[in-house]
Amino acid sequence: MRNIKLTLEYDGTNYCGWQRQINGISIEETLEKVIIDLFEEDIKILGSSRTDSGVHARGQVVCFKTKSTIPTHKIPGAINSRLPRDIVVVYAEEVDMDFHPIYSTKGKMYSYRIINRKMEPALMRNYYWHVGYNLNFEHMQKAATYFIGEHDFSSFKSQGGSTKDSIREIYSLNLTKDGDYITVTIEGNGFLYNMVRIIVGTLIDVGRGRIPYDSIGDIIKSKDRRRAGITAQAHGLYLEKVYY
Amino acid sequence: MRNIKLTLEYDGTNYCGWQRQINGISIEETLEKVIIDLFEEDIKILGSSRTDSGVHARGQVVCFKTKSTIPTHKIPGAINSRLPRDIVVVYAEEVDMDFHPIYSTKGKMYSYRIINRKMEPALMRNYYWHVGYNLNFEHMQKAATYFIGEHDFSSFKSQGGSTKDSIREIYSLNLTKDGDYITVTIEGNGFLYNMVRIIVGTLIDVGRGRIPYDSIGDIIKSKDRRRAGITAQAHGLYLEKVYY
Repeated sequence: MRNIKLTLEYDGTNYCGWQRQINGISIEETLEKVIIDLFEEDIKILGSSRTDSGVHARGQVVCFKTKSTIPTHKIPGAINSRLPRDIVVVYAEEVDMDFHPIYSTKGKMYSYRIINRKMEPALMRNYYWHVGYNLNFEHMQKAATYFIGEHDFSSFKSQGGSTKDSIREIYSLNLTKDGDYITVTIEGNGFLYNMVRIIVGTLIDVGRGRIPYDSIGDIIKSKDRRRAGITAQAHGLYLEKVYY
Repeated sequence: MRNIKLTLEYDGTNYCGWQRQINGISIEETLEKVIIDLFEEDIKILGSSRTDSGVHARGQVVCFKTKSTIPTHKIPGAINSRLPRDIVVVYAEEVDMDFHPIYSTKGKMYSYRIINRKMEPALMRNYYWHVGYNLNFEHMQKAATYFIGEHDFSSFKSQGGSTKDSIREIYSLNLTKDGDYITVTIEGNGFLYNMVRIIVGTLIDVGRGRIPYDSIGDIIKSKDRRRAGITAQAHGLYLEKVYY
């Protein structure tokens, strides 16, 4: 048996998310079906991150075990030729049999893209969250610094996550601005359910003056979801990298 | 009567191009229908640029004459509320009655976006041309300098354009690279049919070694379309600005 690790890029627009669901087509089942067909084995794939509907990925990691002897470097092309064009295997490698895409994770990087102008965009609407308010970018940058480090992020998680422990460490949280476009990049050892989207939504609420930038420390300490900001829309979020 | 000038952004993916055609829905007819409905007049709109199917715009300019007294600043919202989401009026202004979106033009700016990596992209496939070859970016930048200035661009036009004169002036042609992403920005007093796409295709052919960068001058002089490179795909092209 071999343990194959795939790095996956996908456009989440037309899927109900990574995970199999009753309504809608998931990325998980789309990829698994292709892998079962190709390897002619009863394969179960395992993804590192359960991205929501509309969320994109440049570096989702997926593992599966196979008896096949197909050379590893030929796996991406063989899978991609059977996949829809909005899912692409970027890389394949053989890893140790005990490598696990979830439990072996050391951290993750996400990015979030915003277009900030009054008028709704006609272009790239599935790839940017449109925010029409005037934003104080400097306040958003100041607010971002409060998230760095190890905290209980209970104020920044939605109901429905599977983990009990809400302590996570944020390694970095950077905001860049290029004309109307704002990119948020965040790295940490792990993220609670909707945590990145609630952090981004809170930064937006800081930018438009609904939350003072220097109250972020208190909001974290309160462990009260109602004190944080809105949840940013799914389609601006990208799973960039999973660190092992 | 008033002459109204609109600045238009659109995603060209789902249209047969700007101009009305027998097969497919054009941006021109989609916008005109909304304007006729809204103003309750028999209005003819006129666009500055006949963008092809798949080509995007951030700054298409459209004019129409109306007897309506609706305040100019209310026109974008009124039109946008009736348009599909992939066409947006960004700005409206009242201009002199003799202002003409084509004949009053002093120049145009286009951009062209390329993703350069081996693997096909899953994301933003309608907004970037995927080029899988290794490219010598320095050679492409050197080649770009030959296009600047006033030349007969017969080597860089497709059949089917309406103009007889092929002399145009390129004011600037810049290439920037950010990781796998290449952006070409070109400004000039006017462009022949497919001229930007053939220039970009030729730059790609230079980058992959099929055309030497120092032969661009000769290719221009030859006035022979067969000596220039391929025509870059439509969906990487953006009409950015029209200068008046």
